[in-house]
Amino acid sequence: MAVPVTPLVLPQSLDLLGTAIFALTGALLAARLRQDFVTMAFFALMTGVGGGTLRDLMIGAPVFWVRDPWVAPLCFGMAVLVWVTPRQRWENELLLWADAAGLAAFAVLGAAKALGWGVAPVPAILMGILTGSAGGIIRDVVAGVPSILMRRELYITPAAVAAGLCALGMSFHLANEATWIIAALGGFAIRAAALYWNLRLPTYAHADKEG
Amino acid sequence: MAVPVTPLVLPQSLDLLGTAIFALTGALLAARLRQDFVTMAFFALMTGVGGGTLRDLMIGAPVFWVRDPWVAPLCFGMAVLVWVTPRQRWENELLLWADAAGLAAFAVLGAAKALGWGVAPVPAILMGILTGSAGGIIRDVVAGVPSILMRRELYITPAAVAAGLCALGMSFHLANEATWIIAALGGFAIRAAALYWNLRLPTYAHADKEG
Amino acid sequence: MAVPVTPLVLPQSLDLLGTAIFALTGALLAARLRQDFVTMAFFALMTGVGGGTLRDLMIGAPVFWVRDPWVAPLCFGMAVLVWVTPRQRWENELLLWADAAGLAAFAVLGAAKALGWGVAPVPAILMGILTGSAGGIIRDVVAGVPSILMRRELYITPAAVAAGLCALGMSFHLANEATWIIAALGGFAIRAAALYWNLRLPTYAHADKEG
Repeated sequence: MAVPVTPLVLPQSLDLLGTAIFALTGALLAARLRQDFVTMAFFALMTGVGGGTLRDLMIGAPVFWVRDPWVAPLCFGMAVLVWVTPRQRWENELLLWADAAGLAAFAVLGAAKALGWGVAPVPAILMGILTGSAGGIIRDVVAGVPSILMRRELYITPAAVAAGLCALGMSFHLANEATWIIAALGGFAIRAAALYWNLRLPTYAHADKEG
Repeated sequence: MAVPVTPLVLPQSLDLLGTAIFALTGALLAARLRQDFVTMAFFALMTGVGGGTLRDLMIGAPVFWVRDPWVAPLCFGMAVLVWVTPRQRWENELLLWADAAGLAAFAVLGAAKALGWGVAPVPAILMGILTGSAGGIIRDVVAGVPSILMRRELYITPAAVAAGLCALGMSFHLANEATWIIAALGGFAIRAAALYWNLRLPTYAHADKEG
Repeated sequence: MAVPVTPLVLPQSLDLLGTAIFALTGALLAARLRQDFVTMAFFALMTGVGGGTLRDLMIGAPVFWVRDPWVAPLCFGMAVLVWVTPRQRWENELLLWADAAGLAAFAVLGAAKALGWGVAPVPAILMGILTGSAGGIIRDVVAGVPSILMRRELYITPAAVAAGLCALGMSFHLANEATWIIAALGGFAIRAAALYWNLRLPTYAHADKEG
């Protein structure tokens, strides 16, 4: 059906970096839940590739990790890393910042790939948000912990900013590399500000007048 | 792979109506859980397009909302509507009846689209049921509330009746419009009767003799 | 996109057997939760076809049960069987052993189908594991019970062994039938040993030194 309309070369090293970071968060959740290594590897894979898998299915592209021989071993490598490492070394602020970087990178890459496959800007932005956030949502739902969507952290918004800036720049045919870098930095900056100042969006505030 | 075997023109306005109704139920759940606006918009989208997305992936069609520029903004519009409106205005019987209409319309449209893509009648009926119900199931699972499948409401059955009548009429080559209207009305009537008389199917009743 | 690179004829009777076994486990969970028949049928279908559906979507193959008119009625037949039968007859050791056979058969078939569609060995093994385990995971998540991944049973490992042996044999171009039988027996043996001796993998054991 759909074919790539531009010869878009995704920055694959960035893609693998994002996958590795999310695989790490999946393995860490399995460690916190005291699972065995096989379950930990499964969580690493599910979290690392979940968002990109949904994106590829929806835009009609071949699922990236089924066709790329490096992605799955990378996820398993992160599981091994967590398995052999005492947990607290990873559970510090560094992980939160790495996760912010992964979220921003994945949101940009997801939007860019969707645009490259001929998807219109608004759905392409949504594909970027999905790529950045779905892996973590699947991880939390399968583990039975409250999903990141339900926590009051500013998490989807940075992904939306990164994907939106990417779609904006590519719609105006700015240079791809510059667009991607600026978009990712923009999303990362918002997530960083949210972490630093504990920013939150206001919640639905209409009183329940009937009960 | 699969291509539409009949030049089926789906009644797109009905499709958008169903999407809007389900997006509304997603936004309302987010309001009840006191989420922020971004999460509310995410829930509206997920609930509005979830069923149709699974259907399109399974029958090999391009995912409708990724290719249609109007669907996502419509879902966001429903989120805005819920955000600016006191909650109780929507949480009355009107919503239940609108949901019943959406369920019936989506079940018919899902079955009709699957048949149009050359799917056999039984799987096509299942595609109709899926289109009508999957959005709500995904919404409930991600939110961590008991899914509609687990409640004892008569909900899947009306969808099955609507999709079944649609497949029956189209298999006998009755006029498409008449078939769709009768099938949707049939499903809606059963859901309405279930709501009015609080109808339920009997549950599994064999005694647990061993424990 | 992808097309089968070898004229692989999957042993369809084995495939239907695995589907039937998993459909049975889905219906039984619905019975334990005292659901009505429609929900039971939905669970039977979801559990029976869930793993194969994800596999087919990811490797780019037509979804098997949407194109095969026998799979869905088979799942419903299993739901009928559970509905008319007192529960304890099925909840004995026989079911556990049948489930072990289904897991091994599905893991082999999933890996073989992925290899037949040109997927590299490591992702193909993962497709086998997914085919064997995803139906049960979806069943548990939708039902709101702890998923099989979270229990401490040796369950993913036998699937990995079966899929791994299958990929190994097919990579060395051994006879397909012999490879499949040996791989399935190997996976079944490990699952059987785990059931008989209550084998478990060690869990993540690093002390939480920081709290």
